[in-house]
Amino acid sequence: MDVAIVGSVALDSIETPNGSVERALGGSATYASIAASYFASAGVVGVVGGDFSKKHIAALRRRGVDLEGLEIIPDGKTFFWRGRYEPNLNDRTTLETQLNVFETFSPKMPASYCQRPFLLLGNIHPELQMRVLDQVRRPRLVLCDTMNLWIETALEPLRRLLRRVDILCVNDSEARQLSGKVSVPAAAESLLASGPKRVIVKRGDHGCSIYGRRGFFSIPACPVRRPVDPTGAGDTFAGGFLGYLASQGRVDDATLRQALVVGSVMASFCVEAFSVTGILRLNRADVVSRCRELHRAALFQPIRLGRWLA
Amino acid sequence: MDVAIVGSVALDSIETPNGSVERALGGSATYASIAASYFASAGVVGVVGGDFSKKHIAALRRRGVDLEGLEIIPDGKTFFWRGRYEPNLNDRTTLETQLNVFETFSPKMPASYCQRPFLLLGNIHPELQMRVLDQVRRPRLVLCDTMNLWIETALEPLRRLLRRVDILCVNDSEARQLSGKVSVPAAAESLLASGPKRVIVKRGDHGCSIYGRRGFFSIPACPVRRPVDPTGAGDTFAGGFLGYLASQGRVDDATLRQALVVGSVMASFCVEAFSVTGILRLNRADVVSRCRELHRAALFQPIRLGRWLA
Repeated sequence: MDVAIVGSVALDSIETPNGSVERALGGSATYASIAASYFASAGVVGVVGGDFSKKHIAALRRRGVDLEGLEIIPDGKTFFWRGRYEPNLNDRTTLETQLNVFETFSPKMPASYCQRPFLLLGNIHPELQMRVLDQVRRPRLVLCDTMNLWIETALEPLRRLLRRVDILCVNDSEARQLSGKVSVPAAAESLLASGPKRVIVKRGDHGCSIYGRRGFFSIPACPVRRPVDPTGAGDTFAGGFLGYLASQGRVDDATLRQALVVGSVMASFCVEAFSVTGILRLNRADVVSRCRELHRAALFQPIRLGRWLA
Repeated sequence: MDVAIVGSVALDSIETPNGSVERALGGSATYASIAASYFASAGVVGVVGGDFSKKHIAALRRRGVDLEGLEIIPDGKTFFWRGRYEPNLNDRTTLETQLNVFETFSPKMPASYCQRPFLLLGNIHPELQMRVLDQVRRPRLVLCDTMNLWIETALEPLRRLLRRVDILCVNDSEARQLSGKVSVPAAAESLLASGPKRVIVKRGDHGCSIYGRRGFFSIPACPVRRPVDPTGAGDTFAGGFLGYLASQGRVDDATLRQALVVGSVMASFCVEAFSVTGILRLNRADVVSRCRELHRAALFQPIRLGRWLA
């Protein structure tokens, strides 16, 4: 089954302790659609300017990403972000943001996308995410990503949006911020009460969890010995997660658990190189091998307590 | 089999957003021995002053903790710590530390303890941990806990100690600090090269991992909806971990994985109440039920990728 992905398509200038890149391919829809494209047909809804190089378009096309929904504004400039990561690769500073063509962007779903049963509302303003939702008829599953910026500046539209999505995908600090709860389990419980049927909590290099009304499931992160650039890891996770679900055509508990593993594995490839380089040319064997590594790392036998000294 | 535990026995005054306690029972050996005592006979090596109330001694005795190695210095005062936790319950400020009888403490293993095959070097100065190690003959397993304070102020003795322990137990930031590596897997690899056969990395409310030369194993944390006081959670984890191993009399890979689960479950009870209240009166059914919850939360089916769109 097919996936439609709305989000940013961007040019990123990134500095990390391991080096830097200038005006590299980035954006939430870019990372997510590349990750999803290995498992399902992925169509992007986004906007770029005339400065968006043909090379980038070609790279996405080669990956099989459907660009019918990518608007090109020839006399506009592509969304640009410049950021610098601290040595811990977790904390980052935004040095420059140019919204450019994104300032007036209004996402338009091509008619052919409206039948795609899996919809990823990538990390953009919640009002824009809502406009996409208004254009589709009952998708099978809507996954919504967001970030601290929208929690701080667009809380009301975000809350309205949450009532209409199936799965919310946030990191642990966003989960706490959005719910006002200190503990992640309490935050997840509160977020589940606000609309979504499930909440995914990303825990960076500690792994991730999915919470539902009847319980939770957690996996460790795929070990990355030499992380290079964490940009886009969350988007890659979301794209891999939804792409795998679409490929299975099922959204039961067991498949959701597997999708979390696949998303996590895809994200581990993402952080191993700058921009999208780590995920542009993956082969099946590498992905399968990391899924197996995670399976081995998470497996334990039920505990049978012997004596109990009361 | 039996466990010997060296560490601090202390009085703690703790403030958290959920309340406070004054001169409550605390210390690394206290938490660890209580946790271990449900699974194995646990003997403490430590020191207290004349101000250490009979009530505390009685509470430990009722729990079956062997206090033969607890030195009481009638005209001395017990180690005292006062701290305050931030609303996130992760960051804390030490407001007061009185070493008191700990200033001149030199641990002495009672002859009866020297045969205990499982030894926990709880979180105290590495020179003191070393002195304990010098008094025992080839224990089956030595688990060593430490903290940022010793990494900063006693790095050399700590490094010497690491060559003589089987398992090192640290949290993720200590693992990074001690190894100088950014990523936890790289940190674990480096620490494994410095002596211990295994390294446990505690990740707070994200779970924990154990790294060995042939791979790693990770589990999520046991969900705690309303954490009250995280003091002693790491010590409780270590005590539960080693106590379970001792009860099984095996230290193979499968048993180590189960021990990590048991340690994590014990720690979840610890943070639900101030001081040791959460772990003093546990029943078997509650512990078994949380172990099962973790098992359900970590279980997934091997991933079989369907189509792969190269």
